[in-house]
Amino acid sequence: MPKPADGRKRVVVESVQPEIDAGRFPVKRIVGDTVRAEADVFADGHDHVAARLLFRYCDVPQWTAVPMQPLGNDRWRAEFSVARVGEYLYTVSGTIDHFDTWRSDLEKRIAAGQKVAVDLLNGAQLVEEAAERAGRDDADVLRRWAAQMRDAEKLEAAQTAALDPALAAMMATYPDPALETRYERELRVCVDRERARYSAWYEMFPRSTAAEAGRHGTFKDVEARLDYVAGLGFDVLYLPPIHPIGRSFRKGRNNSETAEPGDVGSPWAIGAAGPDGGGHTAIHPELGTFDDFQHLLRVAAAKGLELALDIAFQCSPDHPWVQEHPAWFKHRADGSIQYAENPPKKYQDIYPLDFESSDWPALWDALRDVFLFWIEQGVRIFRVDNPHTKAFPFWEWCIGEIKRDYPDALFLAEAFTRPRVMQRLAKLGFSQSYTYFTWRNTKQEITEYFTELAESPLREYLRPNLWPNTPDILPEALQIGGRAAFLSRLVLAATLGPSYGIYGPAFELGEHEPLRPGSEEYLHSEKYEIREWNLDTPGSLAGAIALLNRSRRENAALHASHHLHFHTTDSSSLIAYSKSSLDESNTVLMIVNLDPHHKQAGWIDLDLDAMHIRPGETFQVWDHLSGARFLWQSPRAYVELSPEMPAHLFRVQRRVRSEKDFDYYQ
Amino acid sequence: MPKPADGRKRVVVESVQPEIDAGRFPVKRIVGDTVRAEADVFADGHDHVAARLLFRYCDVPQWTAVPMQPLGNDRWRAEFSVARVGEYLYTVSGTIDHFDTWRSDLEKRIAAGQKVAVDLLNGAQLVEEAAERAGRDDADVLRRWAAQMRDAEKLEAAQTAALDPALAAMMATYPDPALETRYERELRVCVDRERARYSAWYEMFPRSTAAEAGRHGTFKDVEARLDYVAGLGFDVLYLPPIHPIGRSFRKGRNNSETAEPGDVGSPWAIGAAGPDGGGHTAIHPELGTFDDFQHLLRVAAAKGLELALDIAFQCSPDHPWVQEHPAWFKHRADGSIQYAENPPKKYQDIYPLDFESSDWPALWDALRDVFLFWIEQGVRIFRVDNPHTKAFPFWEWCIGEIKRDYPDALFLAEAFTRPRVMQRLAKLGFSQSYTYFTWRNTKQEITEYFTELAESPLREYLRPNLWPNTPDILPEALQIGGRAAFLSRLVLAATLGPSYGIYGPAFELGEHEPLRPGSEEYLHSEKYEIREWNLDTPGSLAGAIALLNRSRRENAALHASHHLHFHTTDSSSLIAYSKSSLDESNTVLMIVNLDPHHKQAGWIDLDLDAMHIRPGETFQVWDHLSGARFLWQSPRAYVELSPEMPAHLFRVQRRVRSEKDFDYYQ
Repeated sequence: MPKPADGRKRVVVESVQPEIDAGRFPVKRIVGDTVRAEADVFADGHDHVAARLLFRYCDVPQWTAVPMQPLGNDRWRAEFSVARVGEYLYTVSGTIDHFDTWRSDLEKRIAAGQKVAVDLLNGAQLVEEAAERAGRDDADVLRRWAAQMRDAEKLEAAQTAALDPALAAMMATYPDPALETRYERELRVCVDRERARYSAWYEMFPRSTAAEAGRHGTFKDVEARLDYVAGLGFDVLYLPPIHPIGRSFRKGRNNSETAEPGDVGSPWAIGAAGPDGGGHTAIHPELGTFDDFQHLLRVAAAKGLELALDIAFQCSPDHPWVQEHPAWFKHRADGSIQYAENPPKKYQDIYPLDFESSDWPALWDALRDVFLFWIEQGVRIFRVDNPHTKAFPFWEWCIGEIKRDYPDALFLAEAFTRPRVMQRLAKLGFSQSYTYFTWRNTKQEITEYFTELAESPLREYLRPNLWPNTPDILPEALQIGGRAAFLSRLVLAATLGPSYGIYGPAFELGEHEPLRPGSEEYLHSEKYEIREWNLDTPGSLAGAIALLNRSRRENAALHASHHLHFHTTDSSSLIAYSKSSLDESNTVLMIVNLDPHHKQAGWIDLDLDAMHIRPGETFQVWDHLSGARFLWQSPRAYVELSPEMPAHLFRVQRRVRSEKDFDYYQ
Repeated sequence: MPKPADGRKRVVVESVQPEIDAGRFPVKRIVGDTVRAEADVFADGHDHVAARLLFRYCDVPQWTAVPMQPLGNDRWRAEFSVARVGEYLYTVSGTIDHFDTWRSDLEKRIAAGQKVAVDLLNGAQLVEEAAERAGRDDADVLRRWAAQMRDAEKLEAAQTAALDPALAAMMATYPDPALETRYERELRVCVDRERARYSAWYEMFPRSTAAEAGRHGTFKDVEARLDYVAGLGFDVLYLPPIHPIGRSFRKGRNNSETAEPGDVGSPWAIGAAGPDGGGHTAIHPELGTFDDFQHLLRVAAAKGLELALDIAFQCSPDHPWVQEHPAWFKHRADGSIQYAENPPKKYQDIYPLDFESSDWPALWDALRDVFLFWIEQGVRIFRVDNPHTKAFPFWEWCIGEIKRDYPDALFLAEAFTRPRVMQRLAKLGFSQSYTYFTWRNTKQEITEYFTELAESPLREYLRPNLWPNTPDILPEALQIGGRAAFLSRLVLAATLGPSYGIYGPAFELGEHEPLRPGSEEYLHSEKYEIREWNLDTPGSLAGAIALLNRSRRENAALHASHHLHFHTTDSSSLIAYSKSSLDESNTVLMIVNLDPHHKQAGWIDLDLDAMHIRPGETFQVWDHLSGARFLWQSPRAYVELSPEMPAHLFRVQRRVRSEKDFDYYQ
């Protein structure tokens, strides 16, 4: 067994956190965030050790070192801020700190009245060795200290110099590299812009924006809808695929296998615009031109709305790739191309791409180029359709390729699939993930799932985006719960995570008829036909949505899931949870009635500590939804929530004393 | 970002368990053990995957593959046995199983009455591809199957062939390597002989074996004591250092700083035998010669006792290395060698070795050679003194070097230190570890600590060796608890872990006077003087010890800590716990009164499930210590334990029906 290169490295650095899969994947942060790292750092014997957290932006060669603080039991902690979008690296260094050991021994010897002349010489030697490692200025300073410590004539001055905290501080900056152990891995942080974590999405079908005029909606019509969407308070406007729609085996209304003349087909069956081309880099002619699209992007941006495009990597039989790149598709034994199947069901309007194709490198390039094409057009957010049916290694490569040049690009994974698969996609680089929220309805389900998202290792890399509905999913809760269910699911989505979205106008207008009993498909699904929506329908939830989105903007606690805590309630229909901003200056408390049919009342036992309220402190809770204000002094509160407005979204206001000596709440 | 070598590898293999620190360290097993491994194995999409556990003995180049079984939620499990001492490797492979996907789709299509002619051709193609990868015989078989599947004339026979389980089984053995993902690490298993886990140690000072004759004991006198030790049922006889003892600054009786004439000094201050040499490869002349030592080894082995030597890497100022290798010691600024210190305390009889010496490679060689020297003498077990004050990297290298050639060598780490340090030494290669058992006295302390040892990741690499006393430690519990405390601590040590030891005859004779109140040092510590022990003292615990060691041998449950479970008792003084052999055929139940002063009685609520007893099943418990037998039918049992014998060690006997149709317990 060979000896190590330097057997003098006696410090161990292990159990560094956060670390995902032994450093295989980065943790995720947004600009301005803090990375708090911990590690076990210790040595054999009784020598003191020092630990430093090292970090650097990926293209800066030098590490910045932050001294770590001991937490006890050989655990150490430090943190650093990430100021730029892109990738940071971090690791931990531990070293034997002989000077610190020596210094503390010296104090004990002096306290015991022992002679320390030789010890001072030992220390002076350590200082002189550090001077060898220091820059010229510090070296001079260190050598002056050493000379004082060596001055046997002035023992008291030598002692004072030896114990000078300034000397200790300077010594700590020149550890002996022979005694320094670096953690065996460098870990990564993927830093995104804020919208990667905190966003409110509105999904709508452009083609339905002119139905009242009896025609196919266009980008121009979408522009006319922007004030409405911005007025609801959303910041991302997400459009289903805007490409030409396949004609072969086109699906009819309500997913019928045969389309009638005039049926518009599913936007997810990407086809051709005609003999001149089509596919994933074309625009459906009835929506408009590239100029129109550019105009829409600009106008939306001016209203605070960022456009997100849907990228669905699959082809209708009309897609140009079918002719140009037959090798990218699977062929059956009879020579035909394999259509999508879930036996015995057949989806003949869709050809999946074959990621086991021997021509996979060209396929990967083409798919990456689809993203780059739309990035050139100015799009930076992509909602990726069914990423879990494409090869995992492709996503890591593709997202890495794109973010190298466009680190502000964001990717939402629409992977309603098994937990490990969903998690893998998040690890591989997706910025946000659709979640199981859509089917988590009971108090226990919600508590368990969101505790897992906020407290398990998932918190480091999976950013949830919560959807109460999508064009594919009209959950049972909305089918049978009426307006109260829409309201409670809306409040839950908007407050349980920092990102959420709705598919509208179906959502705010309370659309709730399924295709058939037991189905989660919408009746008259907009996926297969143009729908006319009357935005002025009485009872629209638009007002509540606008209120909620304003509350989200006004409360930093809702921009992340820090300090998420579920409080005890005495009713299984009442769920109560609070969140605070990382600096604890803003706290919100949500109480939601999960029973859509009845008024529910009960007692909430607040864990005031989790809300950063001191025992006995009085505080007010101001409800953003009703405008009501309550003065609460005890951790026990009575609430009553009716189906008309089944939720409180309280901002917690602490009583403070003003300079002018009166109390107020802030 | 470069593309991977083959982007078609779509299977993920992650979260492999057991794995210590990302595979940095091996897990430990003994010969005959099972390694049960789990992993998350999954792919994108809906294709079926197959997972295989791969393992091999270190010098066998081929992997053996074991199919893994799905546990749900993408988790898979398989196991393999380790038959040989040495190192095994294991890892996990996952692959897309197109044939299995195709086969299950075919079944669905047939059930739905669809035409499957083309599908059969698709399947035949998969079989032909596998034939390309198969050996000639299997290839022929596979091609015959494929031909049947292609026979359009006999569709029914083609279907039957396609769904033949024998075909599926053979197909599973020829996965397509292009689709196979190997876990990114190969993990190690360190396999030791059984004594690494299951052992009973008896420590004694050879020099005290002739005190009744008024002289220094010798190896011959130790031989005369072997029947006694073997009669107690121990299997390891551990001797403190047998080297010459230093004369410079020799410690006197009761650790006095000055030795009187005739004081024998501490065996841990390794010195010289005279001008001719000494040190770690010499024998103290008063103990005997190398021939005597060899004789002792042989006689002990014949009585079932394996000798363990104490290796203490430190030197008295007389040690030959001080002259020969001054670079291996630290020097003070005045040129003197640095003695051991814990300021303000000084230990001038001991020079620590300097692991930061620039001559560290030669020092490492010399220390390894000490082990090799005694291994040549026939010793295979080493109790290592204070390993935590020697460099961590040294231990990994040294133990690795020795076990490469002597895989049956065992090392017990005497590291009564911080948890992370104790754990690190175990990871680095020590076979067994002293633990905190010595100071864990209350029901809660014992329950928490042994649950951690048996259930946390520690179980994979830290093998506890439990000592109620050592020459360094007379714990408070033994100082004040009288005979009952000795008995209860003995039963706990012998049953809470598969390895334990006592320092005798001090233990069995109930030696309990501390040096002074508050000290854990023995008064008249045998470390500094020869003690005369009267083995026939009335009240000796020898009989109880012999009973306990016999019970340990007879009950496989006590050879490991499988299925360790603490049962509820209604008294804080009564602790109850059970263990079973891995195959569940042997179960023992211990109930111990932790109050040494009073009889304690109470109810035990047994978790019968944890003891592998079916609800309603009657069973007997037979007490190895008292010989009593009880027929128990309910999970609730009443016990009463007095200070005279404060423990039950029950063997659980299940009622079974004999072939001759009467019931008995086994």
